[in-house]
Amino acid sequence: MQTYVYFFGGGKADGKGDMKDTLGGKGAGLAEMTNAGLPVPPGFTISTEVCRIFYENNGRLGEDIQRQIDEALARLEGLTEQKLGSTDRPLLVSVRSGAKFSMPGMMDTILNLGLNDITVKALATRTGNDRFAWDSYRRFIQMYGNVVLQINKRDFDEIFDHIKQKANAKLDTEIPVAALQEIVLAYKALVKEKTKADFPNDPRQQLQGAINAVFGSWNNPRAIHYRRMNKISESLGTAVNVQTMVFGNMGNTSGTGVGFTRNPSTGEKEFYGEFLINAQGEDVVAGIRTPTPIRELERVMPECYRQLREITDRLERHYRDMQDFEFTIQEGRLYMLQTRNGKRTGKAAVKIAAEMVREGLITPEDAVMRVEPSQLDQLLHPILDPKAKVKELTQGLPASPGAVSGRIVFSADDAVEMAPKGRVVLVRKETVPDDIHGMEVAVGILTSRGGMTSHAAVVARGMGKCCVVGAESITVDERNKVLTAGGKQLHEGDWITLEGSTGKVFEGEVPTIDPDPASGDFAEFMAIADKIRRLGIRANADVPRDAEVARKFGAEGIGLCRTEHMFFAEDRLPHVQKMILSNTEPERREELAKLLPFQRADFEGLFRAMDGLPVTIRLLDPPLHEFLPKREELMVEVATLRAKNGPAKEIEEKEKLLQRVEALHEFNPMLGHRGCRLGITYPEISEMQCRAIFQAACTVRKAGKTVKPEIMIPLVGLPKEFQEQKAIVDRVAQEVFKATGVKVEYMTGTMIELPRAVIVADQIAETAEFFSFGTNDLTQTAFGFSRDDSGKIIGDYMAKGILTSDPFQELDREGVGALMKMGVERGRATRHNLKIGICGEHGGDPSSVEFCDQVGLDYVSCSPYRVPIARLAAAQAVVSRKSPGEGGRTV
Amino acid sequence: MQTYVYFFGGGKADGKGDMKDTLGGKGAGLAEMTNAGLPVPPGFTISTEVCRIFYENNGRLGEDIQRQIDEALARLEGLTEQKLGSTDRPLLVSVRSGAKFSMPGMMDTILNLGLNDITVKALATRTGNDRFAWDSYRRFIQMYGNVVLQINKRDFDEIFDHIKQKANAKLDTEIPVAALQEIVLAYKALVKEKTKADFPNDPRQQLQGAINAVFGSWNNPRAIHYRRMNKISESLGTAVNVQTMVFGNMGNTSGTGVGFTRNPSTGEKEFYGEFLINAQGEDVVAGIRTPTPIRELERVMPECYRQLREITDRLERHYRDMQDFEFTIQEGRLYMLQTRNGKRTGKAAVKIAAEMVREGLITPEDAVMRVEPSQLDQLLHPILDPKAKVKELTQGLPASPGAVSGRIVFSADDAVEMAPKGRVVLVRKETVPDDIHGMEVAVGILTSRGGMTSHAAVVARGMGKCCVVGAESITVDERNKVLTAGGKQLHEGDWITLEGSTGKVFEGEVPTIDPDPASGDFAEFMAIADKIRRLGIRANADVPRDAEVARKFGAEGIGLCRTEHMFFAEDRLPHVQKMILSNTEPERREELAKLLPFQRADFEGLFRAMDGLPVTIRLLDPPLHEFLPKREELMVEVATLRAKNGPAKEIEEKEKLLQRVEALHEFNPMLGHRGCRLGITYPEISEMQCRAIFQAACTVRKAGKTVKPEIMIPLVGLPKEFQEQKAIVDRVAQEVFKATGVKVEYMTGTMIELPRAVIVADQIAETAEFFSFGTNDLTQTAFGFSRDDSGKIIGDYMAKGILTSDPFQELDREGVGALMKMGVERGRATRHNLKIGICGEHGGDPSSVEFCDQVGLDYVSCSPYRVPIARLAAAQAVVSRKSPGEGGRTV
Repeated sequence: MQTYVYFFGGGKADGKGDMKDTLGGKGAGLAEMTNAGLPVPPGFTISTEVCRIFYENNGRLGEDIQRQIDEALARLEGLTEQKLGSTDRPLLVSVRSGAKFSMPGMMDTILNLGLNDITVKALATRTGNDRFAWDSYRRFIQMYGNVVLQINKRDFDEIFDHIKQKANAKLDTEIPVAALQEIVLAYKALVKEKTKADFPNDPRQQLQGAINAVFGSWNNPRAIHYRRMNKISESLGTAVNVQTMVFGNMGNTSGTGVGFTRNPSTGEKEFYGEFLINAQGEDVVAGIRTPTPIRELERVMPECYRQLREITDRLERHYRDMQDFEFTIQEGRLYMLQTRNGKRTGKAAVKIAAEMVREGLITPEDAVMRVEPSQLDQLLHPILDPKAKVKELTQGLPASPGAVSGRIVFSADDAVEMAPKGRVVLVRKETVPDDIHGMEVAVGILTSRGGMTSHAAVVARGMGKCCVVGAESITVDERNKVLTAGGKQLHEGDWITLEGSTGKVFEGEVPTIDPDPASGDFAEFMAIADKIRRLGIRANADVPRDAEVARKFGAEGIGLCRTEHMFFAEDRLPHVQKMILSNTEPERREELAKLLPFQRADFEGLFRAMDGLPVTIRLLDPPLHEFLPKREELMVEVATLRAKNGPAKEIEEKEKLLQRVEALHEFNPMLGHRGCRLGITYPEISEMQCRAIFQAACTVRKAGKTVKPEIMIPLVGLPKEFQEQKAIVDRVAQEVFKATGVKVEYMTGTMIELPRAVIVADQIAETAEFFSFGTNDLTQTAFGFSRDDSGKIIGDYMAKGILTSDPFQELDREGVGALMKMGVERGRATRHNLKIGICGEHGGDPSSVEFCDQVGLDYVSCSPYRVPIARLAAAQAVVSRKSPGEGGRTV
Repeated sequence: MQTYVYFFGGGKADGKGDMKDTLGGKGAGLAEMTNAGLPVPPGFTISTEVCRIFYENNGRLGEDIQRQIDEALARLEGLTEQKLGSTDRPLLVSVRSGAKFSMPGMMDTILNLGLNDITVKALATRTGNDRFAWDSYRRFIQMYGNVVLQINKRDFDEIFDHIKQKANAKLDTEIPVAALQEIVLAYKALVKEKTKADFPNDPRQQLQGAINAVFGSWNNPRAIHYRRMNKISESLGTAVNVQTMVFGNMGNTSGTGVGFTRNPSTGEKEFYGEFLINAQGEDVVAGIRTPTPIRELERVMPECYRQLREITDRLERHYRDMQDFEFTIQEGRLYMLQTRNGKRTGKAAVKIAAEMVREGLITPEDAVMRVEPSQLDQLLHPILDPKAKVKELTQGLPASPGAVSGRIVFSADDAVEMAPKGRVVLVRKETVPDDIHGMEVAVGILTSRGGMTSHAAVVARGMGKCCVVGAESITVDERNKVLTAGGKQLHEGDWITLEGSTGKVFEGEVPTIDPDPASGDFAEFMAIADKIRRLGIRANADVPRDAEVARKFGAEGIGLCRTEHMFFAEDRLPHVQKMILSNTEPERREELAKLLPFQRADFEGLFRAMDGLPVTIRLLDPPLHEFLPKREELMVEVATLRAKNGPAKEIEEKEKLLQRVEALHEFNPMLGHRGCRLGITYPEISEMQCRAIFQAACTVRKAGKTVKPEIMIPLVGLPKEFQEQKAIVDRVAQEVFKATGVKVEYMTGTMIELPRAVIVADQIAETAEFFSFGTNDLTQTAFGFSRDDSGKIIGDYMAKGILTSDPFQELDREGVGALMKMGVERGRATRHNLKIGICGEHGGDPSSVEFCDQVGLDYVSCSPYRVPIARLAAAQAVVSRKSPGEGGRTV
């Protein structure tokens, strides 16, 4: 017959530590500790399978399971020589949920189950402590009433506070026994009133109720929400752990505590934790008494301390990971209540992983799986001082990590004006390319609109600048320079603080801490990851400064240099605008000639910074009207001038400009005149850019550096588009080589960012020497989602479970990923060694990096500050691929 | 050794009629006629293969080919008992190009080759006609000088006119011999001046020059342009035909003429053509003398006429098609110079095809290949009276066929106001959904922007209304109500005429002719096509009136009813706007309840009109802001009001509206909050629409009609999107069935219009009961082309040869088509009998219909007026599929 209930106790358990699927995390830990001979209060675990049956049978367990529970209970009673409901030696138990993954939102714990009006007296007698017994009883009714009977906690609190006041007690511990008894009576009356039934006196009925409540809590809305957010399968189910109570509050030889085998904050190898003498776990949590550092235990109960050290050392070696444990000492005897791999900060995770490899405790492969890639962020950016007091105003999307304080400005121009006087934070409804100069001088950016791939987010990440976007609850009045957030009005010059890693926004100036990314542990850990990974890691960088940062963070090349970002600089934009507004090719060429030296200088800087490494340069991509004043703003200006009878000449000029802007206006610019379409309509633009690239390359080559330019044609959908642009690249290259007398090796490739490009990838690969997946655009076109507009829709879809993640953040493997796979296969069918990378925002997302490894890409490229994350994710991908059972992520 | 030169003459030819690839069309015809024993002047054809060699060898032919030419020439001289350059019996030849497909732009003809100062005298002697000989000579120099030596024709004309004037001749035929000789001398001097060389006297050299000129003309810019536009392969090459001259101008027993075996204009079975006594072909073309109807020939040369009738009857039977022939009678002897399948009007094509089937001359399969689907348009719409004098103003894109005249209006409101007083043509920069009421009352629509699938084009086609879009050379000043076109300014109320089938725009009112689509020939021909086709044909129709038209044209159901078009009607839009501006679900439901009766009534009308046939209804698709005032217009209004210190209350109201419109604003609405995303965010909209559909269905069913609703969910990319919407459909259906006590069969399916939907088509097909390809959106997303913005880009791409056709007009088989194929395969892998159709604009494009047939779609759906075209195209697809050698199109 199938086993549904697993007993543990007396040095032996039915289950094992690797049975997390069946026993849940907690149950597996208890079984493992029991088997290891550790002092664990005995009990039994009802398996997750029973949870599934519970839901299939509409809340009934069936005879087989009930019999197994009864048998386990009898065994427990035998072992402990106690009996549920006994008037002499009553067995008291705790009932806890325990799924495979720890899950807030599910029922946590019911303690002291088994107490009733009769057993409470037996408990008092056995412990010689009336107060303890009645306090345990009233706690039990309260917990059970709230968790199982679903009575509002506030109702209990009201009764409690009323009687406590009446008894003139300041602390809970001062409430006299009589008052506790009065509370019990009043609680029971409350239960009767709310449930129309007596509080269950029968401990078996209590147990039944508690078990059902645990199973029922699996499907409460908070739990469902949590699972959805964390991608935990609905079908896993939870186990129920029924365990003999031990009491840390039975006098001064009792106590309870929690601890870690290493410091979870710093990673230092030190015994770390705290305890309370004569207390139950609840008291530690409630914060009524201040716990004592765990080393004190050595002084007050040296034997227990020694035993605890020995046990937890063993546990760490056994689990080969830092342990987070709970223990209780009952009258001088140590019991282990729980052990699990401890949560830790990024800093600690890195240190512990690196040290454990050095200690020989774990393999390098284990080590890379011990750090969540996103945790590395903490080591790369300033963080808020955890000790600082903060006033949160709102929370937006965590667009770009870091923590900064600055004075509020509402326009890019104001930012430029005020920045020399001190740090400024640029606050906008949304940002546009026009705002670049303001973004550059600001220490942080806050917007009320836009998603994780909005302009503000993408540019800020590229700059490694703290950024919070889409804070929809705030109102930004740019005209009147007022920010309304959290019910407050903030004005220009007021201080504000952004936490980019959480998306939180705080009032005033909050102190921050600069971390040290060049620390020994970090470098050591990254070296471990680098040895394992197969994927190359490059960075998206447009200017030499970013390239240097990227290289410092370990980038092995530049995977995407967006040349248009060079066009937005203040000294260049006028030429760009003039060029766009030109009506003839000669006029355009004249302005392009003025832009050439700027571009060349930028490329020289990039090539110098990346000496010896490849630099992928994408030709101009965005629609030209991005460089011009906004159409609707011009319309308003003209209308206002007209209404006010403004100067005729000014009106005429504005109208002329408006006309040209109108002519360039597009309904869907994302699908409009951009990418290689620009270079085909205006070959002179591609020509100028190529000339700047090759002149720069030759100059830097002459200076003795190694230059590896890779020229990338964007938005190709037709093989001929690529051929036409490549012809320009090759022609200009030859011209420059001839003129300078220097030759450099170069490659010409294309972005694969349109579904049609995927379909004809075999044809494109006939002339293209490399592919780089532009997964931002590929996601846009595959889904038909504009990344600028889809934030709300995607949010709605995630809330409704239609999407499990934002496809602009985490690569949609099923759809976009399938297209990528097709592109890789078709491209390599033509050119078997075709170099293929990715340069969309996904290049820095761990799950996406894993997928890129799986489908055989050669490299990923991401923003400089995400390079270490990508390096780690790439290593994890290899480990996951080699032992797929482990799953891609640490939990 | 390979044959490069094919002789014909003496009743036998080396080549055959089916060797068009090698001999070109003309050469194959000459060979076929010769083999059939018809009187063809002998000659030889230099094959198209030589053209390829000519280009590979930089204009040289090589020894083998030269020898074959010499041999053929010797054989020709033997057969005709004449000799090139002979002073006694000089051989004169014509040299003509002749590719597989007739191609304007290539060199046409050089006549009288072989003449020089000596042979001209021999010709004079032999013909006893000095004038004839010298006139032939001067014509030859002129033709050769122009075509081979590339001297401007004007230079020859100046000389000719000067001497003609000097000789006091009014007609060319009045120029005396001496003057003709003077012209010859002056022509030669001109050649010497321009080419720095004497005019070639040696006939062999003349022949060599003419052959090279023919091959050279294959790659002149006009020829290249023509091939690109008509998708003729560059590698085909042209043949050269060298043929003995015969002369129709050797007196009154000579003559020349052209004719058709049936009337090419009406299709009537009558001998049709014209001839001239004592003339060369050139004279007919030049229009100097008025030709005589061919029946006159019976009177003047009865034997020749009898022979010609017999020969052309034979040719028609032989080629099993109406023939277009040329003949010359030299001194009472008939020669056939050319025969080919004759070009004809749509009306004639249909009549001839139907009659030839009846005559047993061709099979039904042949018949359907004899009519270009686009020709049917002529039979379905009014056409301009071909006899009318017109002044063309401009040419735009032929968005929707027909020919209409009307008075110009510049806004939808003006259209509504002026329409009761007479026909109006709506002239706009572009149209928006707001303009629908104006489009409905206008007889035609003209826009200066937008492509073949712009709003104006799509809506106009749907309405069967004449429309010209993207007339980029015109300027539309909507504010001042001025249309500037072709250098003229037209104002409101001025007459204008549109020709939708060509995109031409004319000044004033041009008379039109109403065709008769219900004629016997048309019906008979369509019945032939219907028997052959496999694809079902449905129509896109939104209102009962369109559905009735569609049914009349043979639609077998409605493939797409766009419910949003119902939302734009004047009595509904306010409710729609209120609904959109609502902040809460109850408010939205209130407005939706008001819309329900309207929708229900529309659906009732549709179901009644389509009794017994399926009606596919798509739930709301466009972004909601399409129903609201334009954002930028509101911004201008507010700014103007502010600048003028307008009433505070009005400003406040407008600003409030603007705020809501701002909130709905999207950067790329095509990729935004539309399609099923609306129904998921606002399930109450889908609910209302389903309720209206099922209530209407039940009402019409009760009235004894057969109702087959097919509910279609738009823009699905994720299987769960579809499931969620289908759940609403099913729930509402059951509710309505219960409430009305009536049940109707229905299906729920989805549009496949996103690349992601293609990828997961297998999953979608688990719940979707049918697919309909939305190839407009699929083309947009596969290419990353916004159809509203891409007109210019696509035009540029076609001019540059990057695209061979507009993918929004003709399905891009390689990219979008490959996605469709994938969607079909994956969908049917799950549900093997899945019903699949197409409802994009491509459903009415013949080439696209052919592809839909090939990939196994069940039906295509197109605008009502294209239904006959689709029916024919579907039949042609079957014939092409069964005999792929024939190619998909008649040429």
